[in-house]
Amino acid sequence: MKIEPRTLKGFRDFLPKEARKRAYVISTLKKVFESYGFEPLETPALEYEDILMGKYGEEGDKLMYRFEDNGQRRVALRYDQTVPLSRVAAQYANALPSPFKRYQIQNVWRAENTQRGRYREFLQCDIDIVGVNSYIADSEIIYVAISCLTTLGFKNFRVLVNDRKVFEGLDSKAILIIDKLKKIGEEGVKEELRNNGFDENILDQIKNAKPTENLEKILGSQKEYVVFEPTLARGLDYYTGLIVEIEVEGFEAGSVAGGGRYDGLIGMFSGQDVPAVGFAFGFDRLLEAMEANNLFPPTLTTSKVLVINQTENQESVARIVNSLRKNDINAEIYLDFNAPVEKQFKFADKKEIPYIVFPVNENEVEIRTKSSAGEIVKKTIPLDSLPNEII
Amino acid sequence: MKIEPRTLKGFRDFLPKEARKRAYVISTLKKVFESYGFEPLETPALEYEDILMGKYGEEGDKLMYRFEDNGQRRVALRYDQTVPLSRVAAQYANALPSPFKRYQIQNVWRAENTQRGRYREFLQCDIDIVGVNSYIADSEIIYVAISCLTTLGFKNFRVLVNDRKVFEGLDSKAILIIDKLKKIGEEGVKEELRNNGFDENILDQIKNAKPTENLEKILGSQKEYVVFEPTLARGLDYYTGLIVEIEVEGFEAGSVAGGGRYDGLIGMFSGQDVPAVGFAFGFDRLLEAMEANNLFPPTLTTSKVLVINQTENQESVARIVNSLRKNDINAEIYLDFNAPVEKQFKFADKKEIPYIVFPVNENEVEIRTKSSAGEIVKKTIPLDSLPNEII
Repeated sequence: MKIEPRTLKGFRDFLPKEARKRAYVISTLKKVFESYGFEPLETPALEYEDILMGKYGEEGDKLMYRFEDNGQRRVALRYDQTVPLSRVAAQYANALPSPFKRYQIQNVWRAENTQRGRYREFLQCDIDIVGVNSYIADSEIIYVAISCLTTLGFKNFRVLVNDRKVFEGLDSKAILIIDKLKKIGEEGVKEELRNNGFDENILDQIKNAKPTENLEKILGSQKEYVVFEPTLARGLDYYTGLIVEIEVEGFEAGSVAGGGRYDGLIGMFSGQDVPAVGFAFGFDRLLEAMEANNLFPPTLTTSKVLVINQTENQESVARIVNSLRKNDINAEIYLDFNAPVEKQFKFADKKEIPYIVFPVNENEVEIRTKSSAGEIVKKTIPLDSLPNEII
Repeated sequence: MKIEPRTLKGFRDFLPKEARKRAYVISTLKKVFESYGFEPLETPALEYEDILMGKYGEEGDKLMYRFEDNGQRRVALRYDQTVPLSRVAAQYANALPSPFKRYQIQNVWRAENTQRGRYREFLQCDIDIVGVNSYIADSEIIYVAISCLTTLGFKNFRVLVNDRKVFEGLDSKAILIIDKLKKIGEEGVKEELRNNGFDENILDQIKNAKPTENLEKILGSQKEYVVFEPTLARGLDYYTGLIVEIEVEGFEAGSVAGGGRYDGLIGMFSGQDVPAVGFAFGFDRLLEAMEANNLFPPTLTTSKVLVINQTENQESVARIVNSLRKNDINAEIYLDFNAPVEKQFKFADKKEIPYIVFPVNENEVEIRTKSSAGEIVKKTIPLDSLPNEII
């Protein structure tokens, strides 16, 4: 019986072109995270169901992938990276440094409605500082976010910050309504406030609120990019202090990153209060924003050079690729010397390999590439100088 | 109700120290793979059950994590990376270059018996060349394997090669018995051959077999490390040509990598014959072999420098870390200036941060590190020259 090759709805294959872009962003983020002393953490894809259940509200329990394993244990697939972090913080409390600064870049699984353009398997990129409550930690989280974006090449973005304390005394229902400001506008918010029995003037009071002392310190240390936005709430009511959301100009699909301080969450397994602050990039959105701003390097290919292979004398072609690899240039020979040269060209084309090299004689090669105008440029050069020709 | 923080049997958390080692090996392997033009591929963790079922024999079906998702679809967790590759090769045949040279480094899940020291979630590192049957492709697979090991620092290892054709005409049961040679010795193999109704002289015939023409060409191009081993069979009977297995000296737990040519497998979804050759590292074994040979760089820490923080003037400490980061040196400040200096030292200790820096005045810092003899060495230096002091 022939089985149709296909993937599940909401799940994706990443072919090389896409996988390379993802790898580029991941390695850039890692490098920035590590430059600030954040360390990698990995947790299992599967957890005991009771570790995850009830931690994400009713919707979370519904969207979670849960099942019984072969040993009749109830298990669940990772749903986010915060609950596993909180488990880890409790389970290895003595082994971990304090504060514990970790990043985590792993897939999570949620049985989302795919019609809304959502995926069921997607990458999360989290950084968190666990174990210290200080504006210095809050500021560091913001610095890291800004460094990530500037290193990726973003120029016009805003880091909206607020403090949960700005909403102190306010009903959480009213906070959620104010949080919709960007979606439904000022009149919409006021109407919904009235309809729910609140004073519509709450909105103006919040809009005119002053930054808290903590925010003043954060704003003082980082003036570029950072903007106080008193109506920002980020829905979830587990935030206890700082709230952050990052918007990129020219990308209207929403924020590319968000986070804040959540001092009541990490202690769920240890039974102790553990302060924490962190943020996460929405990886798919970040990639879309990169595309929208044309930020991927044009030279993001795996091989730089294809050496055309038309001889049984494999040592002659091997000499060429080896000289390139020795100079840290990714290079390959076509793996079948019987293949017509057109087929070898097509291979280079599909892989977007920018340089094609023909062996001429023992000491010379012909190198071909496209000029920026799209014309093919050829020249014959000594083998020794080949590595210098590759940009 | 308090929930005990714990992980499932056979599943692991990787805390920073371990995660850093894994990241080091992964990035080294990727770099080597890419230097030969292999491109990254990612496939989903979950597949339709019928894509995976029946592809790994009875044991595979038993060990596979399978369940019904929220939409009543039968799904299964990735069990290896070869079946997904074969699905991808069929599903995107027109989009992929030919030959398709891909690497894939993702977790797989198997409900193994953990008492035998096996894991239920583990990383696989595969590279494969799909779409060409030539000794050049076979050789390239071997070159890549050797490059990976030498780049990781291995010196004494052997790449055992054989060709399935050496066993031509032999009963597959007899092949499996000969494959046990290393485990049960010559007498053991002969006895088992006799007990199963075979001529015990088969073993000597195989031992004296000559390399095939294909192997001669491979052996000719790569003399160091590569050894012809006519009794090597690698159990699985889907190999059709080259068979490879890599043994590292000083690591007796088994081979760290293996593979070969399997021209009948990749076509399972396309219904066409698709030649393929590849190999995979056993990632956990590779890490153990690295440890056994002491190959991890001693400086494999995330932060190089901790700046002691004892002042409200955060700009003064920020200036120091920024000057280091600008020079690509990972550095951090302790995030709470109220913490006693002993606590800050302990933090550096737990993170294995090799350098501690104290601000002295606007232009000078004191730097402390341990000499190779374990003594603490202090000196006061101008801030400008700090980056040059960090090794």
